[in-house]
Amino acid sequence: MGVITLTTDFGLQDPYVAAAKGVILSINPQVTIVDISHSVEPQNIRQAAFLLSTTHHYFPKGTIHVAVVDPGVGTERRAVLLVTPRGFFIAPDNGLLSYIVDETPVHELQAYAITNTGYFLSPVSDTFHARDVFAPVAAHLSRGMSPQEFGEGIASIIAFPIPRPHVGEDGVLVGHILHIDRFGNLITDIKRSNLPRGRVFIEIHGHIVDDLSHTYADEDEQGLLALVGSSGNLEVSMSNSSAARFLQAKMGDEVKVGKNEASLRQVITRETET
Amino acid sequence: MGVITLTTDFGLQDPYVAAAKGVILSINPQVTIVDISHSVEPQNIRQAAFLLSTTHHYFPKGTIHVAVVDPGVGTERRAVLLVTPRGFFIAPDNGLLSYIVDETPVHELQAYAITNTGYFLSPVSDTFHARDVFAPVAAHLSRGMSPQEFGEGIASIIAFPIPRPHVGEDGVLVGHILHIDRFGNLITDIKRSNLPRGRVFIEIHGHIVDDLSHTYADEDEQGLLALVGSSGNLEVSMSNSSAARFLQAKMGDEVKVGKNEASLRQVITRETET
Amino acid sequence: MGVITLTTDFGLQDPYVAAAKGVILSINPQVTIVDISHSVEPQNIRQAAFLLSTTHHYFPKGTIHVAVVDPGVGTERRAVLLVTPRGFFIAPDNGLLSYIVDETPVHELQAYAITNTGYFLSPVSDTFHARDVFAPVAAHLSRGMSPQEFGEGIASIIAFPIPRPHVGEDGVLVGHILHIDRFGNLITDIKRSNLPRGRVFIEIHGHIVDDLSHTYADEDEQGLLALVGSSGNLEVSMSNSSAARFLQAKMGDEVKVGKNEASLRQVITRETET
Repeated sequence: MGVITLTTDFGLQDPYVAAAKGVILSINPQVTIVDISHSVEPQNIRQAAFLLSTTHHYFPKGTIHVAVVDPGVGTERRAVLLVTPRGFFIAPDNGLLSYIVDETPVHELQAYAITNTGYFLSPVSDTFHARDVFAPVAAHLSRGMSPQEFGEGIASIIAFPIPRPHVGEDGVLVGHILHIDRFGNLITDIKRSNLPRGRVFIEIHGHIVDDLSHTYADEDEQGLLALVGSSGNLEVSMSNSSAARFLQAKMGDEVKVGKNEASLRQVITRETET
Repeated sequence: MGVITLTTDFGLQDPYVAAAKGVILSINPQVTIVDISHSVEPQNIRQAAFLLSTTHHYFPKGTIHVAVVDPGVGTERRAVLLVTPRGFFIAPDNGLLSYIVDETPVHELQAYAITNTGYFLSPVSDTFHARDVFAPVAAHLSRGMSPQEFGEGIASIIAFPIPRPHVGEDGVLVGHILHIDRFGNLITDIKRSNLPRGRVFIEIHGHIVDDLSHTYADEDEQGLLALVGSSGNLEVSMSNSSAARFLQAKMGDEVKVGKNEASLRQVITRETET
Repeated sequence: MGVITLTTDFGLQDPYVAAAKGVILSINPQVTIVDISHSVEPQNIRQAAFLLSTTHHYFPKGTIHVAVVDPGVGTERRAVLLVTPRGFFIAPDNGLLSYIVDETPVHELQAYAITNTGYFLSPVSDTFHARDVFAPVAAHLSRGMSPQEFGEGIASIIAFPIPRPHVGEDGVLVGHILHIDRFGNLITDIKRSNLPRGRVFIEIHGHIVDDLSHTYADEDEQGLLALVGSSGNLEVSMSNSSAARFLQAKMGDEVKVGKNEASLRQVITRETET
C-alpha cells in the first residue's frame, strides 16, 4: 500500500524512470507508483517545482513525492526529505521544494538531510541518484520507516523566491508565464486572489483581452481568451489553437492585468518607445 | 481491485493526467489505472472514440473506461455514464462513446446523466472536469457504487454516425483513414468483412497496391503493402518506412478497394480531370 | 503479485501498449506492469536489447520481462521464453535477448519455444503478437505456470555478437555509440573495465576530451565531458546542452580512447587523409 509519485526531467524514451521503478518495487512490491511528469525541460528546476506544487495535493495524504531535476548530481549538493501534513517530499536540495516550503506553515515542516548510505544502492553512481538514492529511500519510507532513519533533522533547505506578480505603474498587475502546456495555454503566476474584482483587461505581447472567460469556448475576435485555469492561476489561451504559437510566447514572458484598457495601452506604448 | 482506463488528449508532459490519478487513488487506493492514450490530437473526439473502440474489449469485464476529449468543458454539455455488458464508460456527452453505442445491442445499454455533485470534487473548476468530475465518479464507481447513484437514467446520448466505407461507382469500395499510428500505418474504416473475396487492388493517392499481405514483410516494389491489421481494419503500410510520410497521407483521406485494377485507375483518372 | 515489464517500439500515442496491458490484467489482475521504454526506434532490435540489458537487474528477482521489437511478426520467426536466475524474458527470437544470453552463464540459462496456442488469444492476428501471444503468455507465467507449459525446451536462441570495443592501431581503444538519451548523452559500448588506468583522452568526431569527469558539472572549454555513466558505460556529454546535437553524432559512430593525446590525433589525421 501507499503511493509514490515521480517528477523528473528524464523523459520516457530512455529506461531511467523504469530503473528507478524497479528499485522501488524491489524494496516494496506493494506500492503504487504514479508519474507526475517526466517531461520537465532538462534541468528546469523551477518548472518542476511549479508542476509538483499544482498536483501533489490531489494525491492521498501521506503520499511520497520524489522530484529529481538534478544538474548538481554527484557534487556536494544535499539530498533532502521534507515532511508536511500532506505527505513526504524527497529531492535534491536545489530549490525543487520551494513551493512546498512556501505553502506550508513553518511549524508544520520538518526537513532531514538524507545521509544514511545504508538505504542507498551500493555502489552509488555519480550521475543517477534518482535510481541509487532517491528511489530506495522513497521505497523504504513507504514501508513505514521513520524519516529520522535517513539522516539528521536540518533547520533549512534551499528555496527560491516564489514568482509572484507585482503592481507596476498605473496600478497595472505584472505577472509572468510559469508553464506552457500541451494545448499552448500560457499559465501565469497570477492567482485568482491577485486579480482585481470586476471587469479586467489582460495584456500579453501587445494583445489585449477584454475580461475573463469561464470556459475555453469564449474566445474574442482575435481568438484569444483569458481565464482562471484548473491550477487556480490566470491562463491565456485560444479555444481551437495554441496561444503560445500565436503569440510566440515563452516561459518567463510578462502578462499584465489592469482595470483600465487605456492605462494598459499606455504602458505598452512606453515600452515600445524604449 | 478493479481497473480504470484513461483516454484523453492531455498529453503526458503536463501533470493533468497525474492529478486525475491522484484523485482516483485518494478515493480508491486499490484500483489499477491504465493509460489507453493521452496523445489524441487536441480536441479530436472522433480519433479518441476510435482508439477506445479498438482497445476496450481487451480489458477485463467490468473495467471502467474514462474518456475525456472535451472542447465543451464548462459549457452546458452533459457528463454521461454508459453501462454495457463489457464495462462502464464515462465521458462528456459529445460523441466520444459513439462506437460503444454502435457495437452494443440497444437492450444491453444503459445510460445515466452524471449530475450528483456529491461525488464531485468541490469546487468544480470550469476547465478540468477530468480531475473534478470524471475521475472521482470513476473511483466511486470502482468501489462498487451503483450507476444510479450518479444521476438519472437517460434515453439517449450523443453519437455521431460511425464512419463506414461506401460502394462508389464501378463497384469500388471507398473508405477513409481513421488513424495514423507511430509507424505511419494508415488505419482505415474498412473492416475485414467489407472486403470482397479473392484478389483485390487497393488505391490511395494514386498508388495501387496489388492484393492484401499477411505480414509487414510482404511489400511490393513501391515499398507499399496493405493488410488487415490488428484492429480488424484495412491498413496501408510500408515495411521499413512510414506510409503516411511516403504518401503524404492524413486522417480523413480516401482509400479505395476494387476487384479490378482497370476500373480503379479509371476512377483515379476521372478524379484527376475534375 | 509479481511484476511484468514491457519494452517495445510501439510508442505511447497509439493504444497498442494499452491493449497488451488489458490482456495481461484480464488474466492476472494482481500483477504490476511497468514500462521500460516504448520509444525504441521502430524496428531497432539492438537498441531495445541494450536498453533491456541496462535496466532489468534493477527489478525484483523473478520479474517477467517482455520485449517486442518484431519486424518479422507473422513470419516463421519463433517466440521464445528465456529463464535465468534473475527472471523470465519473453520475446520474438530475433536477437532481442542477446545481452541476457551474454551475461548469464550457460548452465544457468533455459530456453523454451513458445508454441502452446492454448495460452494465446484466439484468433492470433498476423501483426500484433505482443497482444495476442506475448502478453497472455507473460500473464499466465506470472500466475505461477511453469515455463514448460508454453512449449519445448530448445538448445539455442538467436543472439547477435555483443558490440564491444576493440584495440586498434597505436593501442587506441575503439568503441561505438549504442544509445543517445534524452539529454543528448552518447552512451558507448566501452565499459569501465575496458578503460586503461590513469589519465585518458577520449576522441569523437575530431574532438578530444582530456580525461574522465565524475559529474556532469565538469565540462571542458568546448563544453564536452566524458564519464562512466549510470549504466557502467563510457558516455560523452555536455553539461548544459546536447552532445549529440553539438557533435552531430548518431548511433553506431566511433568513440576512441587512448593514453596519449598525440597518438589519438595521428589516428584522426590518418582518417581524414583517407
